[in-house]
Amino acid sequence: MNQLPLNDPIHLAARLGELLQTRGWRLVTAESCTGGWVAKIITDIAGSSLWFDRGFVTYSNAAKQDMLGVNSALIAAQGAVSEAVVQAMVRGALAHSLAEIAIAISGIAGPNGGSISKPVGTVWIGWSLPNGSIHSRCFQFTGDREAVRYQAVTTALHELLMLLEMQSK
Amino acid sequence: MNQLPLNDPIHLAARLGELLQTRGWRLVTAESCTGGWVAKIITDIAGSSLWFDRGFVTYSNAAKQDMLGVNSALIAAQGAVSEAVVQAMVRGALAHSLAEIAIAISGIAGPNGGSISKPVGTVWIGWSLPNGSIHSRCFQFTGDREAVRYQAVTTALHELLMLLEMQSK
Repeated sequence: MNQLPLNDPIHLAARLGELLQTRGWRLVTAESCTGGWVAKIITDIAGSSLWFDRGFVTYSNAAKQDMLGVNSALIAAQGAVSEAVVQAMVRGALAHSLAEIAIAISGIAGPNGGSISKPVGTVWIGWSLPNGSIHSRCFQFTGDREAVRYQAVTTALHELLMLLEMQSK
Repeated sequence: MNQLPLNDPIHLAARLGELLQTRGWRLVTAESCTGGWVAKIITDIAGSSLWFDRGFVTYSNAAKQDMLGVNSALIAAQGAVSEAVVQAMVRGALAHSLAEIAIAISGIAGPNGGSISKPVGTVWIGWSLPNGSIHSRCFQFTGDREAVRYQAVTTALHELLMLLEMQSK
């Protein structure tokens, strides 16, 4: 893992694909602020249909509710960019797919939408592993909209690889 | 429209966004071979939440059935890369979203999956307009996987703009 650069999403996705194929696992993505970029990177790879099941681009709150079953009261209470919502997105993605592993991302890419408590660059990422565990972390990325989204994509892939490799030890 | 280069997806998406915002319309995407790339390009644009509702990355046939309600018998009879399936994807995307306009893409990006009747580069694209009409066309793109996917993304956006501008005349 250490030789994998955080800024090389295609190699991260390829490594993830090798690992998933070896184990017979499939991936589902649920993306808000990254808007399908993780799915795009994954499907850059020929043969990714063997380990990538589907992706949800839940850009609107209505989409999070309809496609993933995220409770509207939860979004109202915690905000779409929150640990509770990203974990609900992970669970919803698993429940509405054939996958064993899920990535969910919800954040504020900017330039608008930030606040004092959740400034631009705040991104919650959640992952579920085949053992049923759910992991979630909040990141504070810097830079413009493109930079925030790019860091969210690479971090989501990189951290999932780390979690899977830790689990297998 | 004539001044819009076909190879500049971000400007095509921005122009589409201006047009949709002016009319109060929202877009939904259903992507197979492009794997979320259209949604990624759209959400590159700040404020796209005003006109982009959600995206379906229906990479597997099961995803096309579950997420968009495409009939499995239709996929079996016509193939996932066919006019009937891309039109069913358009209808399913509209039915499972709040959008008035849909883009659907199903093709063979390669390097594998091609056949004599449907070689690598064969891509069906479908669009629905707010007047209820559905349009679909088959394209034969050239180049490698990246080139085929890129041409599918730019063509999907470019043709939708052309259809909307023709409709408004």
